[in-house]
Amino acid sequence: MLNLLAVGSVALDSVKTPFGQVTEVLGGSATYFSTAASYFTRVGLVAVVGEDFPKEHIAFLKSRPIDLEGLEVGRGQTFRWCGEYGYHLNEARTLETHLNVFQKFNPQLPNTYKEAPVVFLANIDPELQLGVLEQTRSPDLVALDTMNFWIDGKRDALLKVLGRVHIVIINEGEARQLVQEVNLVKVAREILKLGPKVLIIKRGEYGALLFTQEAIFSAPAYPLEAVFDPTGAGDSFAGGFMGHLARTKDFSMNNLRQAVIFGSVMASYCVEAFSLERFRNLHPDEVQERYRAFKQLTHFDEM
Amino acid sequence: MLNLLAVGSVALDSVKTPFGQVTEVLGGSATYFSTAASYFTRVGLVAVVGEDFPKEHIAFLKSRPIDLEGLEVGRGQTFRWCGEYGYHLNEARTLETHLNVFQKFNPQLPNTYKEAPVVFLANIDPELQLGVLEQTRSPDLVALDTMNFWIDGKRDALLKVLGRVHIVIINEGEARQLVQEVNLVKVAREILKLGPKVLIIKRGEYGALLFTQEAIFSAPAYPLEAVFDPTGAGDSFAGGFMGHLARTKDFSMNNLRQAVIFGSVMASYCVEAFSLERFRNLHPDEVQERYRAFKQLTHFDEM
Repeated sequence: MLNLLAVGSVALDSVKTPFGQVTEVLGGSATYFSTAASYFTRVGLVAVVGEDFPKEHIAFLKSRPIDLEGLEVGRGQTFRWCGEYGYHLNEARTLETHLNVFQKFNPQLPNTYKEAPVVFLANIDPELQLGVLEQTRSPDLVALDTMNFWIDGKRDALLKVLGRVHIVIINEGEARQLVQEVNLVKVAREILKLGPKVLIIKRGEYGALLFTQEAIFSAPAYPLEAVFDPTGAGDSFAGGFMGHLARTKDFSMNNLRQAVIFGSVMASYCVEAFSLERFRNLHPDEVQERYRAFKQLTHFDEM
Repeated sequence: MLNLLAVGSVALDSVKTPFGQVTEVLGGSATYFSTAASYFTRVGLVAVVGEDFPKEHIAFLKSRPIDLEGLEVGRGQTFRWCGEYGYHLNEARTLETHLNVFQKFNPQLPNTYKEAPVVFLANIDPELQLGVLEQTRSPDLVALDTMNFWIDGKRDALLKVLGRVHIVIINEGEARQLVQEVNLVKVAREILKLGPKVLIIKRGEYGALLFTQEAIFSAPAYPLEAVFDPTGAGDSFAGGFMGHLARTKDFSMNNLRQAVIFGSVMASYCVEAFSLERFRNLHPDEVQERYRAFKQLTHFDEM
């Protein structure tokens, strides 16, 4: 039984940070998302890789509660991304993008995926996001991520899919860009007018904000002594967030708050190493442990 | 009986933000600090103004529980600062600084101030900060603020005074500059090695972090729909923080956490209007109310 369906990219990343560099390692939004979510529930992964995609990566994904029936092997090479980060690790500078098989990606849901109650549309062409939604059978909860490229280039399709999702998970700068407003409270009000009931603004090292019509919840990022590579942090956040919601099937404000913390926990582990390395040996107890650390980090007494 | 002593600047500010501009309005670090702190306890203000300092500003300060015996009237003009902010309101661009009487400021504590148990040294020349400390009689708690200008220009004096204070309250960028390190956990460890037991890093719209050897506490900034002028936010934060500590005389970690929230409350009110305008009609009940709003903003359930 599939609780959660994720559509996005699986990639081979080459990344340089002030703390080292790696070449053609496992990456991609759907990869980070489903690996993080797999600590909470079983995930079905819909993506495409090329014929060159290393078998060891398939084996790693299979070692997690991730269903790969939706992972297509296309003719050609796997999507490749190459980027670097400066000392502040805030934002990646993309050096190269080779879409390869991803260019013709047209996600097809296996029959067993179509009734997944919770759906995550990672950052891909909003027309593909719409195409995926049309294959589903009225999921209880749909969330999407997007980016500047689509906000600029496919605004109409993006607005259409925004009208059909419950949750938007988006970077701070992109949230501002989407509604052309600087003040985040106003940004949130405008985005919530587009359809979604919940907006999550990701702020990197500054944490995340969750907005509904009625409330705001603020979560910090976990202060880490060693951040090696921020690649995938946002998708790992989304994975922890959606994974917790899919597991608990409770979409109340209190549970959304907890989900934001679980998202922040997964993001904080993600950045401790390059690629998905930290998840290879991350024990579920450590997820609980860092959740408690977040409580310590933010708790203060009532008056 | 004076619970709290503050030394810093009283100024006439001219400020331009995307939301308006004001000319020669009440400003200065000690002004913001003592006004915010005066919601919690009685403050003694040590500063200098010129002969041109408007009587209405004196009347405003006197209308609060602020003792002005330490406010010297020097020969010449009051310190003037002129700055502007862009749409992101993150950082002021200083257009003009006229030190005027502040140039020869040599703070003298009235006898009744010398036994104040809690002392705040706002951002002034570290040699003057040292001079003030030498006039006090072993206060229970001393905190200081500083800035890039002194970190670069008076490093030795600054290190000397850092060795004699309990708490440092400093901007994120300046904290990094002080110990030439980017990662904030490492920054904190290095700064705590210089003497202070507590470090507070102010992050503007991203809130504040409190570090001790044993723990970290993270507080968000309050998400406001209308931020008019960030001038004085940091000093208002320090005022709420130190005011709460001076009132309660409890320097435990739990109370430090509460103090950070009270600081954040006062900063959030400060930025809602130009100059100190918001404090002219801020009711003490509103301080309590926003404290509760911070609890709502950050609360999540244990697992």
